[in-house]
Amino acid sequence: MHFADRLHERISDIDSRLVIGIDPYPEKLFGSSSPFARAYPHLSPEKLLIEFCAILIETAEETACAVKPQAAFFESMGLSGLAVLSACLKAARMRGIPVIMDAKRGDIGSTAAAYARAYLDPDSDFFADALTVNPYLGPDTLEPFARAAAQSGSGIFVLVKTSNPGSGAFQDRLLKESAERLYTKVARAVTDLGAANIGRYGYSHVGAVVGATYPSELKALREVLSSSYLLVPGYGAQGGTAHDVIPAFRPDGMGAIVNASRSIDYAYEALGNGIDKDSIRKAIYDAAKKAQMDLNNAAKPIPST
Amino acid sequence: MHFADRLHERISDIDSRLVIGIDPYPEKLFGSSSPFARAYPHLSPEKLLIEFCAILIETAEETACAVKPQAAFFESMGLSGLAVLSACLKAARMRGIPVIMDAKRGDIGSTAAAYARAYLDPDSDFFADALTVNPYLGPDTLEPFARAAAQSGSGIFVLVKTSNPGSGAFQDRLLKESAERLYTKVARAVTDLGAANIGRYGYSHVGAVVGATYPSELKALREVLSSSYLLVPGYGAQGGTAHDVIPAFRPDGMGAIVNASRSIDYAYEALGNGIDKDSIRKAIYDAAKKAQMDLNNAAKPIPST
Repeated sequence: MHFADRLHERISDIDSRLVIGIDPYPEKLFGSSSPFARAYPHLSPEKLLIEFCAILIETAEETACAVKPQAAFFESMGLSGLAVLSACLKAARMRGIPVIMDAKRGDIGSTAAAYARAYLDPDSDFFADALTVNPYLGPDTLEPFARAAAQSGSGIFVLVKTSNPGSGAFQDRLLKESAERLYTKVARAVTDLGAANIGRYGYSHVGAVVGATYPSELKALREVLSSSYLLVPGYGAQGGTAHDVIPAFRPDGMGAIVNASRSIDYAYEALGNGIDKDSIRKAIYDAAKKAQMDLNNAAKPIPST
Repeated sequence: MHFADRLHERISDIDSRLVIGIDPYPEKLFGSSSPFARAYPHLSPEKLLIEFCAILIETAEETACAVKPQAAFFESMGLSGLAVLSACLKAARMRGIPVIMDAKRGDIGSTAAAYARAYLDPDSDFFADALTVNPYLGPDTLEPFARAAAQSGSGIFVLVKTSNPGSGAFQDRLLKESAERLYTKVARAVTDLGAANIGRYGYSHVGAVVGATYPSELKALREVLSSSYLLVPGYGAQGGTAHDVIPAFRPDGMGAIVNASRSIDYAYEALGNGIDKDSIRKAIYDAAKKAQMDLNNAAKPIPST
């Protein structure tokens, strides 16, 4: 089944536009001063990591349209971290939760094809429903990803306008030939890349990453990216609000999914130290539920009667 | 010791500007029709991969200033591929060969710091002497990499102008404000990023990737990247010649290292099928030696008397 169709139906089915980012910061999860580690006093770091992923996946089952593991944190924990990542991807998929692998890969020709094999081939240890990719090397380097994704019914999300404070330095440059910003040119390439593979709801399997922290760019890019699902980071801990993400959605309340990582993953930190397992689960669940509602309100403004 | 100093001295010591890329294509190494697999009939795919890396590392010991494992191919082989990658990095480093991890990572803030921990922290399973990074997200996202590298005496190479046919689509755009190309703007950011950490030979720990396939851009960027070592891909199988890489070098024949992957890794393929282990080793060694000489001639033009 087409990736965008699966995603679209998942959003409708559970009425959620929330993506739960899985960002395991070692300094938050491990060590004697970590409230998480103290709630599970007999677990090794590897088992703590497994438990952390399991709680987020269980939470996502009811509250999120997808989970988004951040590859960097798992890679930073070496081979054992990557073994947990592989298990985490499988666990989420088994529960029917779409997995967006946030690895921001990008390389030329046959190397891009190798990355696509790693993340978009059902036989891989790291198979995901979608992969984030970086466009700097050029549209030709995105093609192997788009091709592999179309074949396996998965998708890609191309970085267009990212949420960080310095994203403008290169992405916002005004181009002399076309009098448009670089991010607009990249967005047009994204639209072209997916044009031959539009699903039944009007969206291609090639989505785009556009940050919540730049609402006016988000509004402009929603137009250019006419057949793309938007993956919107920057909501929550990075400062983007539900109001900021309103322009990401189509009038029907669809077309975008919004990621929150730290504000959900570490919601229990607000409770202080010495909390137990149940309180950790509940704090994470409550934060996810609140974000789900918050984003639904942004996507579907109450009709004025 | 400062990364650029180590690299510079390694180049002088063994008189080589060649980087041997380690690009294990599964379709070339495994399967019943692979001449490589047929030369080692009793080895599992994992053992074949180990053997392939070992041959290239042994070859590099005498002929190359560095090796450059391509992460994508190892990731495409899943957890067992990554275990071999980790062992390969350690084996090369134990022999004193600098390792450039070609992973083209890039992400925002704390996530970039996590990638830096994965590849530039001596305690990591994947510690390398240098890492390739992607600048699209902005200069602020390169800082955590540069900071971590400076701390551990390792380096980074930032993608500036890549070797692929479509690299111009975004990288070559002329910017309205500054009337320069995007790659020039990125190059200036690279120079700034390394400015506070210049080694004894005048090079910072922040290098740049500039493709051999665009010689006139290479010439221009050699000027802008005044304190960067250049990592030049595209020589060999991608069509770049020794003549094309001449502009990468300073008048003293230093300042650039040139990668060759397929033309060395699979040099034995020219010998046809049914070749033995010794012939494979010899073909790889001969191709590396030839590339080493070829590049030395490009770097150090014979003085006219």
